[in-house]
Amino acid sequence: MSKETKKKFTNINELGEFGLIQHLTQNFSPLNSSSILGVGDDAAILKYGDATLVMSTDLLVEHIHFDLNYVPLKHLGYKSVVVNLSDIYAMNATPRQITLSLALSSRFTVEALEAFYSGVELACRNYGVDLVGGDTTSSRTGLTISITAIGEANEKNITKRDGAQVEDYICVSGDLGAAYLGLQILEREKKVWEADNSMQPQLEAYQYIVERQLKPEARKDIIQVFAENGVIPNAMIDLSDGLSSDLMHICKASELGAELYEENIPIHPQAHKVAFKEFKISPTTCALSGGEDYELLFTLPKDEFQKIDGKANVKVIGKMLEPKEGIKLYSPKGQAFDLIAQGWNHFKQE
Amino acid sequence: MSKETKKKFTNINELGEFGLIQHLTQNFSPLNSSSILGVGDDAAILKYGDATLVMSTDLLVEHIHFDLNYVPLKHLGYKSVVVNLSDIYAMNATPRQITLSLALSSRFTVEALEAFYSGVELACRNYGVDLVGGDTTSSRTGLTISITAIGEANEKNITKRDGAQVEDYICVSGDLGAAYLGLQILEREKKVWEADNSMQPQLEAYQYIVERQLKPEARKDIIQVFAENGVIPNAMIDLSDGLSSDLMHICKASELGAELYEENIPIHPQAHKVAFKEFKISPTTCALSGGEDYELLFTLPKDEFQKIDGKANVKVIGKMLEPKEGIKLYSPKGQAFDLIAQGWNHFKQE
Repeated sequence: MSKETKKKFTNINELGEFGLIQHLTQNFSPLNSSSILGVGDDAAILKYGDATLVMSTDLLVEHIHFDLNYVPLKHLGYKSVVVNLSDIYAMNATPRQITLSLALSSRFTVEALEAFYSGVELACRNYGVDLVGGDTTSSRTGLTISITAIGEANEKNITKRDGAQVEDYICVSGDLGAAYLGLQILEREKKVWEADNSMQPQLEAYQYIVERQLKPEARKDIIQVFAENGVIPNAMIDLSDGLSSDLMHICKASELGAELYEENIPIHPQAHKVAFKEFKISPTTCALSGGEDYELLFTLPKDEFQKIDGKANVKVIGKMLEPKEGIKLYSPKGQAFDLIAQGWNHFKQE
Repeated sequence: MSKETKKKFTNINELGEFGLIQHLTQNFSPLNSSSILGVGDDAAILKYGDATLVMSTDLLVEHIHFDLNYVPLKHLGYKSVVVNLSDIYAMNATPRQITLSLALSSRFTVEALEAFYSGVELACRNYGVDLVGGDTTSSRTGLTISITAIGEANEKNITKRDGAQVEDYICVSGDLGAAYLGLQILEREKKVWEADNSMQPQLEAYQYIVERQLKPEARKDIIQVFAENGVIPNAMIDLSDGLSSDLMHICKASELGAELYEENIPIHPQAHKVAFKEFKISPTTCALSGGEDYELLFTLPKDEFQKIDGKANVKVIGKMLEPKEGIKLYSPKGQAFDLIAQGWNHFKQE
């Protein structure tokens, strides 16, 4: 067989998660007038009659997204719902319904599933969401969880990733990096326990960061502050993959550059201490690349920011720039670094 | 520990798929006025403004629902979409959007995924549906596919499982049992091939039944015939689990009994021949318990049936009765048998 005709197979790692999805869905063109926005944002946008809906879906796989050695099933049920709702809030919409599908092996008992569903129910109650359907099937291996969420939006309030403007403030809610550090603690304690089963995990000193990993919350409160103060961000995304990767999504979609100020990135004191003292890593790196914080990252003009300043736990961490400026991080001493996305890439983990 | 306080763990097999879902979701109560119908029918019903939507989700797991030894990836993509759309049609609604999530191991190449997505795209095109979102992640083991479909309905045309009336005709589209027999042929040829790799599968004589297994279609055409003739069935379900199990869902939801006439159950000649001659099983058993036919089973009064009689490939196979009559199958000689659900129960397969 000549070199030219030899069939070449491409490893999925070569494209990365986002490149792969883009490649595979490039031939699809919308057929329905109700399909307003498809693949490529936190959620799809649908328009039926006078209603504007957003729709998002997530798949969580045992051994990839969670480890049942240290994740209690009730927490897993709660988190599975929350990570989906976070995508709905990132569109500036209100989640209303979810469907939940499970593939599970027969090692799961009814009591284990009751614990999982009690977490799902608690999340549904806390966020005012209804579980309206699902599918349950067996699996030869671990647990797989698929959730799809539907949210309701006011059409003119919807925030996508592509609306950022030059000079917009880049804002973030809460604090970053803690969920990643909580995971490192849980992994470390698991190894200690595996080496010596008489050792019990020591988690008291890590309560905040471990809870950020095991029981994240979606920022429903930030959306409410926007509504109460008549503010609509120009662009928004939820921080699931890490600040670097998620800011790049906004920059790419909005075709702009950006600068971030390291000293403004909010880090919880416990995260700061654990990063430096126990793992000898920069807390900023955890914020940039850790992921799973489920905070909201959004941009808006200075005047608009002032309407919510002090009314929500939100910090200004940077500014949108002309595209030629690239995406830069400024250290407290004023040194500039080019930002690179080091967020979670599932296919490169293997 | 005394007998009374000893913790008992319940195997999920004890409840079965439907019992399990019912048990786990019993504490959920709807919080949103847009949630009209939740867990328990082919799809959920949502109402937003003047729009009525239905929503359904399915999870397909390698080694449980499909075997990549004989299922081409393009067919798998096509079928994954179709089985979901079938649930939307079973509500007498029109599917509009789907989301598609995949968990896959790194053994899949980009070219393999292109084949899968080409099947997804063909199904979307054939049924006029848009792919609007999804999630792609890695898995340590096989392929898991999750699809959620949204459909649009005219509120007064929606058909649930609970509306059947005494004396309603029980009708079915197409023919039954072929998909199950196609699977038996594929499994048999796989074993032959495993025993001797030089043996090529002999499938020419089984084209119809193998295609019913590998490339089912959803009955969009039947829904159109209903609309064109102003007919709204009293109850409807799609045949995914087998006629027995699916008729029982209608009987249970409608709180009625039923009788079926064996000689009226439509069986394709190839299915008939293969069942009798090659597997020595009754074709009726394949129809009752085989599943995966994705035909529509519905009930309506005699007068309404006459409006569509001859306009669609639909047969009357029985009649709804008072609940005290139970659910019976009459043989051609007039013998009555109590019907028992032997359909696909994933948890009892292990």
